[in-house]
Formats: sequence, C-alpha cells, structure tokens
Amino acid sequence: MSSYIHGVGTTSFGKQPDRSAIELGWEAVDRALRDANLEPKEVDAVFAATVFGETGTAQRILKGLALAGLPVVTIENACASGTSAFHEARVAVESGRFDTVLALGFETMTARFDTAIEPSGSDAEGRQAFGMPAIYGMSAARYQHEFGLTSRQLALVSVKNHRHGLLNPLAQHKRAVSVEEVLSSRMISDPLTLLQCCSLADAASAAIVGVDRRCARDIRIRSSALNSGAIWGSGNQKVWGWDIVHDTACIAYEQANLGPDEIDLLEVHDAFTIGEIVTTEALGLCGLGDGGRLVELGHTELGGRQPVNPSGGLLARGHPLGATGLAQIAEIVCQLRGEALERQVPDARIGLVETMGGGTAGIDGNACVVTVLGN
Amino acid sequence: MSSYIHGVGTTSFGKQPDRSAIELGWEAVDRALRDANLEPKEVDAVFAATVFGETGTAQRILKGLALAGLPVVTIENACASGTSAFHEARVAVESGRFDTVLALGFETMTARFDTAIEPSGSDAEGRQAFGMPAIYGMSAARYQHEFGLTSRQLALVSVKNHRHGLLNPLAQHKRAVSVEEVLSSRMISDPLTLLQCCSLADAASAAIVGVDRRCARDIRIRSSALNSGAIWGSGNQKVWGWDIVHDTACIAYEQANLGPDEIDLLEVHDAFTIGEIVTTEALGLCGLGDGGRLVELGHTELGGRQPVNPSGGLLARGHPLGATGLAQIAEIVCQLRGEALERQVPDARIGLVETMGGGTAGIDGNACVVTVLGN
Repeated sequence: MSSYIHGVGTTSFGKQPDRSAIELGWEAVDRALRDANLEPKEVDAVFAATVFGETGTAQRILKGLALAGLPVVTIENACASGTSAFHEARVAVESGRFDTVLALGFETMTARFDTAIEPSGSDAEGRQAFGMPAIYGMSAARYQHEFGLTSRQLALVSVKNHRHGLLNPLAQHKRAVSVEEVLSSRMISDPLTLLQCCSLADAASAAIVGVDRRCARDIRIRSSALNSGAIWGSGNQKVWGWDIVHDTACIAYEQANLGPDEIDLLEVHDAFTIGEIVTTEALGLCGLGDGGRLVELGHTELGGRQPVNPSGGLLARGHPLGATGLAQIAEIVCQLRGEALERQVPDARIGLVETMGGGTAGIDGNACVVTVLGN
Repeated sequence: MSSYIHGVGTTSFGKQPDRSAIELGWEAVDRALRDANLEPKEVDAVFAATVFGETGTAQRILKGLALAGLPVVTIENACASGTSAFHEARVAVESGRFDTVLALGFETMTARFDTAIEPSGSDAEGRQAFGMPAIYGMSAARYQHEFGLTSRQLALVSVKNHRHGLLNPLAQHKRAVSVEEVLSSRMISDPLTLLQCCSLADAASAAIVGVDRRCARDIRIRSSALNSGAIWGSGNQKVWGWDIVHDTACIAYEQANLGPDEIDLLEVHDAFTIGEIVTTEALGLCGLGDGGRLVELGHTELGGRQPVNPSGGLLARGHPLGATGLAQIAEIVCQLRGEALERQVPDARIGLVETMGGGTAGIDGNACVVTVLGN
C-alpha cells in the first residue's frame, strides 16, 4: 500500500526562548491539520520526535489540540529524530496499522543551552557543546587532505544556503553572506568558521501521513529507509557518514525504483558545510571527492541542475534537532506542490530528504534516514 | 501473523552508580541473545527505550555486541518506555516488517539524580524530583475518601511486593517488611510513606521478539495495546489512571480473546502502593473500590488466585524507568516457562503486563501499555 503526505506545517525557525515547546507544537500541528484539510479526530496515532524535550511534552501538545487519547510514541534518534518519526509513520500507514498518522518534531534549544551551558548568554553559535564542531572540523581537515577540497569550496556551501534562506520567510538567518565573510568569521574548529556551523534554534514541524485519498495536493512517499552505523574510521578515507549515507540511500533508491539522476531537488543534513559536501557525494550526485566542485559549478544552487537545501538548510533555515527532519520534509512537499514562491524549483517532480544523527557517541554509531518523495 | 518472545535478559536491579548504561545494556542484551539461542547477526532491528539516557547510547551498546548497522529507534514514553519499545517490536514482527527484533531498555538514575538533584548524596528515595510522590499522594488520599481504602490496605501492597522481591535474586530490595514498618517509615506524601514509594535504580533489560520458530520455550504474545490519555480529573471519582488503564486493557483483552478471569499472574505498575490498588481494579480483577480488599484477602500474593508482581514489582524489584517494562516482560516469560524457581506461580499459563507512564506532565496525558502473553 502506498502512503502519502496529506499536509505539513512548521513554525518560524530561530531563537524563540519565550515560546515553549508546547506552544510551538500547537502551531505546527494546527498548520499541518489545516494544510491537510483534516480535523483532529481524523488522526489515528502520533509519532513525536525530540532530543532534549521533557517527557510528556508530546502528550501535552496533543491535549491542547483535542488530540488526546491516541497511541503516542516519542522517538529520539539524534539529529535524525524528525525523519525517524516520519519513517515510522510511513511504515505504520503502509502496513495497514493506521490510516492517518501525525509525525511531530519539536525542540527548544536556546532556553536550555543559553542558560545551562552558556550561563553568560554570550555567543553560543556554532559551539553547541556536543563536541560536534570538533568532529566535523576533523572530518573537513581530513577531506581537504584526501581530496584537495578547498576552504573556498566549503565556504560556498554556506554562501549558497544563506542565499536560499533569504527566500524562506520561516528561516532563522535571512541575510546574504559572501565567501570572504564566511572565511573571515570566527574560527570554530579549523577549517570550519562560525558561518559554516548551524546555530541553536527553537521550532516545531509536523507532517500528516496517510493512505491514498486521491487528492492532487497530497505527495506520495516513494520510499524511506532508516539505518544506523559507524560514521568514520581512521582507516577509511571517506569521512563523516559517507558510508552510512550511501548505504541508506541505496535502499531508498532501490525501493523508489530510481537513481540519483532522477532527483530534482534535495534537503540534506548540512549542520556544517562539510556535511553537505560529503552527503551530495554519498547520495550519488557526483563521485567521491567531487562534492566541492559540484557546489562551485552551481549544480546544487537554486537555478542549478539539482538544487540542494532550497529552504536554506540547517545552516540558514536552522537546526532545532527534533524539528529539523520534518522541516526538510515540509520544504520538499511545498516544492513538489509548486507552492515555494520565490524559491520554487521549476518542474520539481521528485525530491529527496536525508538526515544524519549522531551525538558525542556519533563516532561509534549513528542514525541516517533517506526518503524519496514525488507523485 | 503471531509473534513470540524468543528470549529475555536483565541485569541486577539497584543502585549501581559505577556501571554505565552501556555496560548494563551489554549484559542484558547478551543474556537475552543467549536465552533466545540467537547470534547477534540474526537480529534485524532494534527498538530501544530510555527516559534520561544520552543520545546514541543504544547505538553504542549495540556496537559493542557486533549489532551495529541495524535500524535503531530509541523510544521515550515515560515509565512505559520499555513496554512501548516492546509493543513496537511486536507490531514490527506481526506486520512482516522484520523477523527478529530486539527490544532493549536501560536507565542509570542514581548517577544522574544523586549528584544533580540531590547534590548532598543524601536520601533521595521516594522523592525523585518529578513531582510524582505528590500526585500519587493526592490520588491515594482521594481514594481513601471515596472508597474507604485504609492505610493498612495500602501498606499491604508494599509488604506483599517486598516478600516477593525476597525470592528474586535480581531485585533491588531483598528484605521483608511488616505493615508496622511500612506505616512508620518516613512520610513522603500523605498517606504514602517511604516504603510505599519505589526507589532510584540502575538496570537494563531486553527481550527478543520474533516470528514463530516452533520452539517450546518461546512465549506467544497474545496481544498488546498502547495508548495515551488523561489520568484523572477533579470531577472523576476514579484516580491515577483508572480510565486509561481500563481502556487500554479492554483493547488487549479483546485482541487476546480472553478476560481478566483467565489471567494467571500479572506484573503491573506499582511505582507507589496506590498504583497497584487502582490498577488491579482497572484491569478488572475486582470492582471499582475493591482493590484494597483484594490485597487484604491474599488474592494477589504468591499462593493466591492471581499473583500480582511476583518479581517484587517496582517497589521491591526496582524502577529504572526505561528498563522497567522489559523486566516486567522478562518476569512473565520466566513464569510461563516454569523457570521462576522459588517464586514460581503454579500452572501459570497466561500472564499480563501493564505499565503506565506520566511525568510531571502526567496529569495532562500519559502512556499506558498492556500486553497479554501465553501459549
């Protein structure tokens, strides 16, 4: 049985310390229900996603929306939590378990990290205290050594995604940045500078997944795959998840019965610029070591052959962990419906979402979800 | 398609601040694999459960056991996290999604709460800083008012479960307590005294769920149901989850095609004594308001008609949140196989597990899982 996305909804992304996860959740779910033209009572079950959210938060969000009394499971899969919840929702529909499932992701990071880990409230951007900048920095340095990736090529990812974010009213960072600005911003973890690292953010996003209701605005889920695995080893020239992204994507391509050439646009995990470079290669948009050239040639920018992160990505749209994956889904749905206004990818038919998750335990094993959408 | 429990494994329960969640997880999973007579490579997917565990912990546990590279989802559903993971594993097998699924629960509470919330390291028993003792205390007081439940009846739940725990080598509290000791222990939240409240604990538990392999030691999952809902309202004379437990149990009984009279033994959520009283009523072992008399008559003790919490329950076996549900499952499996030694329930054929979860957000909505096991 095929499954479809009936509706999506997201809040604004950014630092919103005065808004609770519950309030953000209400907005995202309400938008998704309206977008799907569904009443709360038509939802059969909920898969929620958060990394740091308090226990019971999803249930409180749902109660406020007259959605209490449903089966609810909250999923944590690091940065891939939102797409993991989406994947479980899709499986639940396709197996006939439920007809209509809400996938909901939320995270309030600034209240948590600005006060707890950065008590002065000073600039916490880019050093989220997870050790992630260090891991990504090492990945980037290794990749530069192995494949001649230049700092300018890395910076171009940030320039591109900020340019895209300018066109997204819900994005956290709506300003253009130049290569020079990116490279001269504060060094976080060599070679990654501040503007190559995503920020702390607060937001919620939701998607409603259900059976075929023969509605033209619904977007078919062609495939999705969820996997875990090691992200790199010192004996492997490929870094930061190349293998796990590649392996997961192969499953998703096979299920969808298509290959990377047929993908019109993508939302991928660019928590740091090196992440997007590695991911575009691992997804098969280019060969190993060619990711830098891909962005340099404009292949992945709006107007290029396969735009990557038209929403602005994690770098410009923002990265509130549990909400990220469902915001990626929302962007692709919006694009495939032709409703993306200024950032519309012309003739978008098939879109791909990739998210990778790994905390400080990330080197030992992490999570990856790849999904292919399109009617 | 029916699903079966192929094997179970748990660590000792108790304060083990020197053991990491990873080490505990290794032990539980290794025991479950041996019990199931399975190699790691035969496991297809993992549903992990924890409330406070760090992101990536499940993946690290699995890597150490040569189980890396599988689909892994970590589930949080408050105190019902472990049985929620079990429920998802069962659904995954019965839908044909996977043949063999590991459900794994772990929690290390003493290191977290003794140092963070109780910095002096002083007695943190029974006041876990979740506001739970207050909520349960109010429930108990209301119930005494509504139905004449006596303090002695409440205390008898603790006496019984401690007596059972004495027979369980893995239990946290292996000592007998008298009604007088229970009633004279420190008041935590009137009428609940210290010995009526579960303690902080560290442990891991695991179960392997799979297809029918025609093995006599495997235990069939007759049904399981997962739900959320409000736990009480001021206008309702029933307290602390009566309605949600009842509603969830009705689904599980119907699926299993049997009723409460046919249940030979139960493991239920006795985080506080009032919890067991309310739950035995909501599960239909007796009428509304008769739970106190049920324990007084010996109906629910080992040797009685329907023993409840032969493992010692949350009160004596211990309550390390994410691990609890799978330890309940392990106890019922052990009993149904006739391997429970000194605490064996004679002729045990059908067992029931009930877990309820609700944090400080519990009054607004929480989780309940009920499962019926037996060949």
